[in-house]
Amino acid sequence: MPIEKLDEENLIEHLKESFLTSPPLVGIGDDCAVIPYDQNNSWLITTDALAEGIHFLKEQISANDLGYKTIAVNVSDIAAMGGSPCYAFLSVAMPKNIDCQWVKEFIAGIKEGCQRWNISLLGGDTIGSKRDLFINLTMIGSAKSTHIKYRHQAKSDDIICVSGFLGYSAAGLHALQSNHAHTSDIKSILSAHFRPNPQPLAAAWLASKQGINAMMDISDGLNCDLQRLLKSSHKGAVIEVTKLPLSKVLLNVAKDNALDPLQLALTGGEDYCLLMTISAARYAALSGEFAKLFATPLYAIGHITDDICELKYCREGEFIQIDYNNYNHFA
Amino acid sequence: MPIEKLDEENLIEHLKESFLTSPPLVGIGDDCAVIPYDQNNSWLITTDALAEGIHFLKEQISANDLGYKTIAVNVSDIAAMGGSPCYAFLSVAMPKNIDCQWVKEFIAGIKEGCQRWNISLLGGDTIGSKRDLFINLTMIGSAKSTHIKYRHQAKSDDIICVSGFLGYSAAGLHALQSNHAHTSDIKSILSAHFRPNPQPLAAAWLASKQGINAMMDISDGLNCDLQRLLKSSHKGAVIEVTKLPLSKVLLNVAKDNALDPLQLALTGGEDYCLLMTISAARYAALSGEFAKLFATPLYAIGHITDDICELKYCREGEFIQIDYNNYNHFA
Repeated sequence: MPIEKLDEENLIEHLKESFLTSPPLVGIGDDCAVIPYDQNNSWLITTDALAEGIHFLKEQISANDLGYKTIAVNVSDIAAMGGSPCYAFLSVAMPKNIDCQWVKEFIAGIKEGCQRWNISLLGGDTIGSKRDLFINLTMIGSAKSTHIKYRHQAKSDDIICVSGFLGYSAAGLHALQSNHAHTSDIKSILSAHFRPNPQPLAAAWLASKQGINAMMDISDGLNCDLQRLLKSSHKGAVIEVTKLPLSKVLLNVAKDNALDPLQLALTGGEDYCLLMTISAARYAALSGEFAKLFATPLYAIGHITDDICELKYCREGEFIQIDYNNYNHFA
Repeated sequence: MPIEKLDEENLIEHLKESFLTSPPLVGIGDDCAVIPYDQNNSWLITTDALAEGIHFLKEQISANDLGYKTIAVNVSDIAAMGGSPCYAFLSVAMPKNIDCQWVKEFIAGIKEGCQRWNISLLGGDTIGSKRDLFINLTMIGSAKSTHIKYRHQAKSDDIICVSGFLGYSAAGLHALQSNHAHTSDIKSILSAHFRPNPQPLAAAWLASKQGINAMMDISDGLNCDLQRLLKSSHKGAVIEVTKLPLSKVLLNVAKDNALDPLQLALTGGEDYCLLMTISAARYAALSGEFAKLFATPLYAIGHITDDICELKYCREGEFIQIDYNNYNHFA
C-alpha cells in the first residue's frame, strides 16, 4: 500500500499501539511526551521535523526566518501543554548547494529564537543530504506536573476557545505564492507566516488555572486539530463560524486574492495559537482576567457536546455543511 | 563557500561558539549533552540523523535492520558517557515510494531495539519527503552524575584502550558493495554492519570505576575519533598498530577483496565500540576484572602523550606514516 493510504493519523495510531506507556509517563498522542523528574515537576518533550519542498521552499523563506520558525513551532508545542521551553537539540541534513552564508544565517535565526524564549541549544547532529534539506528539532520544556494540560480532558458543555486569529499564516502563504504586491497588509501577514508567535507565558498562566480542561496548539488548522481533541476526549463539538476570529487584514487579502476566508481559517494550518476547552462556569472570570493580563481576548467559538467525534458547524445558529480537505503532511 | 569547505568539525565549532553553556549543563561537543535533574543524577541526551544515500542505501539494508540500527547507534552514544538508555523520540521523513510493509518492518526493528535495551519510545514526528528518506532519533539516558565520562579528561601516560574489534562493520560494507558470495565469514561481518552491538552495561561498569579518565564511542573510525578525543583533552597519542584488534574474519575478507585491513580498522567507521584512556596504574586491575565480568578484553593499543593534538602511529616501536582520509559525513 503506498504511503498516501498510510496517512499521518494511521501512522500515529500504529506507533501508539506499538509503543504503549504506563503512567506517570505519557507517550505518543499529545503535543508533548511527559517524563516526571521529581515529586512536583515534569519534562515535556516535543519534536518537529521540517522537509524542503513539503514544509518550506528554500527560495521563499530566508535562512534566518527558517531558523527562527524551527524554534517557534516547537515552543508552540511546549506551550500547548502549559510548559516553559528549556533545551533544544537540532539536526540538519544539508545538500551540497547550501553555502556557508546560508548556514550562518540559519544558525543566527535559531539563536534569535533561543534568546527570545530563553532556551539553551545543547546538541544535535549535522549530516549531508543527497538532494533536499531536512531539519529536526527536539525541545525539552518543564512544567509543574499538576499544571500540565492534555487534549483528552474536554468535558461536555465546555466553552471552546482559541487564543489568536485563525488563517492568518495560511493567507500569508497564499500571498507569497501569488507574488502579490507587498502592501503593508501583506507584510504583516507574511510576518505571521515566517515568524510564528507562540505565547508560552500566557499558556503557562492558563495551565495553572482550574477550569481549563483540555488544551493543545493549532498547527494543522482548527478543523483538523479540533477533530484530534474530540477523538482524544471522546466528545463532539459545535462551532459557530461567525465567532471565528478573522482579522481585517485576512479578510482584505482573501477578497483581493479570491480566497474563501472561512476555508483559510479552518484548514490553513500554522496558526500556532492555543485551542482550549473551558468549564462554562469558569469561562467569564478566566477570559476577563486573561484579557487584562495579556491584552488579548480568549475567543469563544463554540462548545463541547456528547456526540462522540462529531464536529458540527453553524452560522447564526443554523447548521451548515463544511467539507474542506484538511492539511495533509504527506501531500 | 560551498558546504564541502564547511565540514562537520567546522560546523560543530561554529555551533559550540554560538551556543555556549555553563556548568553543570554540558552542551555541544561530546557524545551526549548532560542535564542534571536531581542532587545525584543527570540525563544524557544524544541525537543521530541518518540520510538515505549518505548513511544507508534502501536497497542494501532491510527496513527491520535500519530500525534496529537507528536505536543501536544512539545507545552507543549514551553508553559512551557511561549512561543507561531510557527514552527515544523518532522522526521519519518518508517519500511516497515507501509502502506500508516497509514502514511496519522499520517500526518492528525500532521496537526490537527498544526491547533489547529497555527503552520507551515516547514521541517524534512523521512527515512526508519529496525524494529521500530521513530518520532522526533523539535518545535520553540517565547516569549517576559523578560517573559520567567525557572525552576531554585524558591524562598524559594513560593507556588507550578499545572495547572491540575495529574495521569489522566497514569490511561488511565493502563486502556488501562488492556483491561478494555470502560465506559464513561475510554473514557474520554483515551482521556487525547492520546490527551494531553497543554494550551499555559494560560501559556503565567502566564509568563507575576510578582510573577511566576519558571515554567516547568510535563511530567515524579510530583515527578520526581519537583525534577528537585528543583535541578535547589537549593531548597527543602514540598508537602501536600491531596491537589493534583485527578479527580473523576481517583479515580474510580484506585479503579476498584486496582491501588494506589497517585502513579499514582506522578509518572504516561504524565500529560502535568504546575508546577510553585509563590511568596506567589502574589498567592491569581494571582490564582483568573487565575480562572476567564481560568475557571480552580491553585492548590496549597505545598511550597518551603531552604533544597536543599529535596522533602518531608506530609498528613494533618504529614510527610509521599514515595518511588515510577520514570518513566524511558530507561526502
